[in-house]
Amino acid sequence: MVKVGVAGYGVIGQRLADGVALQGDMELVGIADFAPTLSIKALKEKGMPYDLYLVEGADKAGFDAAGIPVSGTFEELVEKVDIMLDSSPAGVGAKNKAIYEKHGVKAIFQGGESNEVADVFFHGYANFEQGVGVDFLKLTSCNTTGLIRTVDCLDREYGIDKVAITIIRRVADPGDYHRGLTNALQIDKAPSHQALDLMTIMPHVDATGILVHTPVTHGHIITVVARGKDGVKITKEMALEAFKKHNRIRVVKIDDGFLGNASFFRYARDLGNPRGDMYEIGLWEDTIVESDNEIMYAINIPQESVTIPETMDAIRAATKLQLTREEGTAKTNEYLGLGRWK
Amino acid sequence: MVKVGVAGYGVIGQRLADGVALQGDMELVGIADFAPTLSIKALKEKGMPYDLYLVEGADKAGFDAAGIPVSGTFEELVEKVDIMLDSSPAGVGAKNKAIYEKHGVKAIFQGGESNEVADVFFHGYANFEQGVGVDFLKLTSCNTTGLIRTVDCLDREYGIDKVAITIIRRVADPGDYHRGLTNALQIDKAPSHQALDLMTIMPHVDATGILVHTPVTHGHIITVVARGKDGVKITKEMALEAFKKHNRIRVVKIDDGFLGNASFFRYARDLGNPRGDMYEIGLWEDTIVESDNEIMYAINIPQESVTIPETMDAIRAATKLQLTREEGTAKTNEYLGLGRWK
Amino acid sequence: MVKVGVAGYGVIGQRLADGVALQGDMELVGIADFAPTLSIKALKEKGMPYDLYLVEGADKAGFDAAGIPVSGTFEELVEKVDIMLDSSPAGVGAKNKAIYEKHGVKAIFQGGESNEVADVFFHGYANFEQGVGVDFLKLTSCNTTGLIRTVDCLDREYGIDKVAITIIRRVADPGDYHRGLTNALQIDKAPSHQALDLMTIMPHVDATGILVHTPVTHGHIITVVARGKDGVKITKEMALEAFKKHNRIRVVKIDDGFLGNASFFRYARDLGNPRGDMYEIGLWEDTIVESDNEIMYAINIPQESVTIPETMDAIRAATKLQLTREEGTAKTNEYLGLGRWK
Amino acid sequence: MVKVGVAGYGVIGQRLADGVALQGDMELVGIADFAPTLSIKALKEKGMPYDLYLVEGADKAGFDAAGIPVSGTFEELVEKVDIMLDSSPAGVGAKNKAIYEKHGVKAIFQGGESNEVADVFFHGYANFEQGVGVDFLKLTSCNTTGLIRTVDCLDREYGIDKVAITIIRRVADPGDYHRGLTNALQIDKAPSHQALDLMTIMPHVDATGILVHTPVTHGHIITVVARGKDGVKITKEMALEAFKKHNRIRVVKIDDGFLGNASFFRYARDLGNPRGDMYEIGLWEDTIVESDNEIMYAINIPQESVTIPETMDAIRAATKLQLTREEGTAKTNEYLGLGRWK
Repeated sequence: MVKVGVAGYGVIGQRLADGVALQGDMELVGIADFAPTLSIKALKEKGMPYDLYLVEGADKAGFDAAGIPVSGTFEELVEKVDIMLDSSPAGVGAKNKAIYEKHGVKAIFQGGESNEVADVFFHGYANFEQGVGVDFLKLTSCNTTGLIRTVDCLDREYGIDKVAITIIRRVADPGDYHRGLTNALQIDKAPSHQALDLMTIMPHVDATGILVHTPVTHGHIITVVARGKDGVKITKEMALEAFKKHNRIRVVKIDDGFLGNASFFRYARDLGNPRGDMYEIGLWEDTIVESDNEIMYAINIPQESVTIPETMDAIRAATKLQLTREEGTAKTNEYLGLGRWK
Repeated sequence: MVKVGVAGYGVIGQRLADGVALQGDMELVGIADFAPTLSIKALKEKGMPYDLYLVEGADKAGFDAAGIPVSGTFEELVEKVDIMLDSSPAGVGAKNKAIYEKHGVKAIFQGGESNEVADVFFHGYANFEQGVGVDFLKLTSCNTTGLIRTVDCLDREYGIDKVAITIIRRVADPGDYHRGLTNALQIDKAPSHQALDLMTIMPHVDATGILVHTPVTHGHIITVVARGKDGVKITKEMALEAFKKHNRIRVVKIDDGFLGNASFFRYARDLGNPRGDMYEIGLWEDTIVESDNEIMYAINIPQESVTIPETMDAIRAATKLQLTREEGTAKTNEYLGLGRWK
Repeated sequence: MVKVGVAGYGVIGQRLADGVALQGDMELVGIADFAPTLSIKALKEKGMPYDLYLVEGADKAGFDAAGIPVSGTFEELVEKVDIMLDSSPAGVGAKNKAIYEKHGVKAIFQGGESNEVADVFFHGYANFEQGVGVDFLKLTSCNTTGLIRTVDCLDREYGIDKVAITIIRRVADPGDYHRGLTNALQIDKAPSHQALDLMTIMPHVDATGILVHTPVTHGHIITVVARGKDGVKITKEMALEAFKKHNRIRVVKIDDGFLGNASFFRYARDLGNPRGDMYEIGLWEDTIVESDNEIMYAINIPQESVTIPETMDAIRAATKLQLTREEGTAKTNEYLGLGRWK
Repeated sequence: MVKVGVAGYGVIGQRLADGVALQGDMELVGIADFAPTLSIKALKEKGMPYDLYLVEGADKAGFDAAGIPVSGTFEELVEKVDIMLDSSPAGVGAKNKAIYEKHGVKAIFQGGESNEVADVFFHGYANFEQGVGVDFLKLTSCNTTGLIRTVDCLDREYGIDKVAITIIRRVADPGDYHRGLTNALQIDKAPSHQALDLMTIMPHVDATGILVHTPVTHGHIITVVARGKDGVKITKEMALEAFKKHNRIRVVKIDDGFLGNASFFRYARDLGNPRGDMYEIGLWEDTIVESDNEIMYAINIPQESVTIPETMDAIRAATKLQLTREEGTAKTNEYLGLGRWK
């Protein structure tokens, strides 16, 4: 049993903890946080299924006032684990790294940290083997994780040498009050970091893209224009066949009721998925179109939960639970029930 | 065991079915619907925990094409139950009533139906005894249900003779694409029906109100200005004391992180509540203010799930499982875990 | 001709400048700002109808790079005027006051400043005479300005001794990217400052209220529950008669197409009003309801422009252009065309 | 003077009327509508600058009740003009065509009508000459109009043979209450009609695209991936040079404050443009990126007003005021002040 700890019990941290708890070959030792947030209060109301440790400088009095039991300090947690999943606020992970190194503990950082913090920038399907045995990995961010699932899928099947993406980004998560946008689309300077990140993970692909923020909370939508390598023309049928085989891509149709990003959220709630989360990205069959020698399609990225499977993959790679992409991702898929819907 | 069926497996119907399934003294016989919606497809993906019956004119071919097993017709469902929960689209319930009468089956209609369809307009806390043994009940709508919890609470404790409400209404549910509002507040003619409905349930109270639709999906907010009867001045402390005793009112503070309607949704998701639902209304302690001889406060109404407890109460009253408000609501609260958080 | 300058050419400052330019007995000497914002760039594209002065520490190089002509420093502007309208960011006005005092220039601050900055907290209709000849006035904020128009209107006609308000607040202005809210309502601790401010201006009225932020940009909506003084019951007809006489209240009906806050914005655009602004508040005739001995109604506050008329009144009072409420407000109304629609 | 009438005084119709009124060589004879909408009431409040005619079946009593003067019937208007601009609701234009034919009057239909209604599908910059002397023209829709400005611009300069577009569409106009979307992105089946329409106007270009609706009201954003013809690689500098020469494309930078679609609306309001409208599309210089042999960029489409210049061009072509693209568009640009900002 690989012993795992989670630093930062926010939107991502909670889901990482839940994801680890579902892995038959891992043990969640505990989580660490700074303040008695609503998420921590919910943990308490649920009866503390996960032990809580406090990071340095934490609001101990606040935890006591709220009657939240504390199991120890952050370093005490680190001492007990084989690997830490660090979903602290951006920048804090880099500081935590010193503690991980001190205790000889491996760590996986989330997309918000700078690439320098890690030895390998990791994606379960695209470069699993590069993460095997490595001490410090950084996961791709939510958009990049979902995007690469599809580009890697086409690339392995037919070869891809160029993509141009448009990211229609949700601007906040449900319940966020610290950021928001009201009746406005906001555009970023191009190229977007997701295109650059894709090239880091898949250096043989030329990628660029534009990102637009939109005032919604349930899922990013990305359109992808991809070109087959060596003049290969990928048809709609070819693309569809490849996508349907992938266990982390859910191919859907508008006519079946998947009208947009919010349909996936509703469907996941109706499925009874915890928090209404979905690990798979959605891919609309009826958006796949051929553009001369290129293929174009649209995907839905459930931003809160999409990186959980690839992070489980990363634990597997770093701790050598499995040594290959096929075995590692298959084990994660099994424990998370990915592909079960087919 | 009271045998229960649910007509209409939409936003409310799904939650009614789940609610019945949680009652130790009830059995959910099945649900009925018309078309293979996303909610029905989710039911199938979950392995059909509830048997499905088709209403007349249903899209049988569509269900077959989607591989969804069907257990029989609507009338076959009605024959098997003691009571139907009718959450069909508004107007359909009135037509279904003829079928219920034919089979001598009781029924409880949701707020969308006209009052004429029922013998008694029902609220578990405010007029339980009027529903005892009655064949056809109609539940108050989501806003009215939550509103009456608080007004009835103050009324029983101190006496209330007048309320003026402002309803800040969410305009759609998460995942709705058939209705919406974009960057606009919309106002209705006054008085709002919720104020009139309150007077039907609590005829000794003078009520009026104004309703404004807002472009959000997670919970209505209502402000209430209430006057104590016979010149009684209700202080903030008095109101708070009464509210805190109520098992379906969750008293919260802004400083604890409950910044608005979306905080409740997030908290319910983090609690692991199915679909991120909450049965309790929220009441912000730090919005309670005294207005000369009146008391003013704000509440949050989780529109998708708030009526479930009172509908369970209605089953109890109609089928005489319990004969009093105290016993009926206590049993519902026990099975739904209401008040557990205290 | 009273010589006027404007500090801060943002959302409010632009409209103050335009408002002054419309007054036959005032001269707009110039405006002052800090950075070459979009509003300043628009001023340049229009050919600099207003002279621009730079506040201390301003980004002079930025103005030069954008080719924007500068007429001098902030102090040079102050030296040329009789009175300054200060719509600087909150807190800056208090610092500017020292400069105004140094040059013996009067000033009117906007609602964002603390009350201490001014000698009198001012509202054109409610306490004009208190501002006559005074050096430093502070205007009520947008919500309070609109709210007091109606409460003062009823108070003068029939007497009012208590109000309870619910403010449904727009969270950002069109084009704002520095603040926003996405799919959430946010609630403030009660009582809201608008209720307290009303009591400062109208000390004989007991006021309280709750404020909820909503993710829209076009106009706040306020519901008001007001009680007649000395047991006077104000009927719908009485309220309507009073409101219809007021030149800064536009009484409308939902049936005429005024469905919500966005209808006013659209109507103002179609009227050809500059920027689609409206100086009047809207009041929906079909929301006026009687609540036992109280009257309830809903109003719309065009947050960007509503304080302009009362600020013009304030100039008149401070500089003694007129000495009474009747004469002062009438002159402002004449130059701004208020009441013209009747 | 070409005599022009406008059928349908809605969002587009109002702007068409205003646009015609600005042309020195045209006369606006009148407008026609069906009901006393807010826009018509605003026309009345402005003193009826345009004569109003009533279409068959119009609500005459409603106009009388509102005191709105009527100048005659729709056919009487048609008799007085050389050409009608038909911005009736979709489908009505096709019926009106019979009346135009009966009176030998030319007509220009808006994008909502089916292509069959017209002899030529028209865009002022892309196919002006095809419209010369033609009786019935149909304008491209708002997105297509703006999109083609840029593709035609690059095509004339360097040659273009393929484009793939992503349309991030605003779902309603400011003030719309009959349509809307709340916290959801909605996707359409691909290819979008705008891509198909582009191929109709520019048959030598292969075009496809995906459209996503977003809950905002101020302007669509489109990302374009375009390939140079015959292997020509269009660099960022080449694209920028071409775009900057175009009088209906406003090249802007994010650093200058144009952060998204709402910035354009705000800027147009600050410019004092009537209704806060803008005839130019926006193009963000800092979104232009090279994608291997293709060029990618993002544009902003002010949906309410963008088709007005091309409709003026269409009048010029149909009535032979000018015979060439250069002369026709130059005259429109002169009267509308397009390019004046450079």
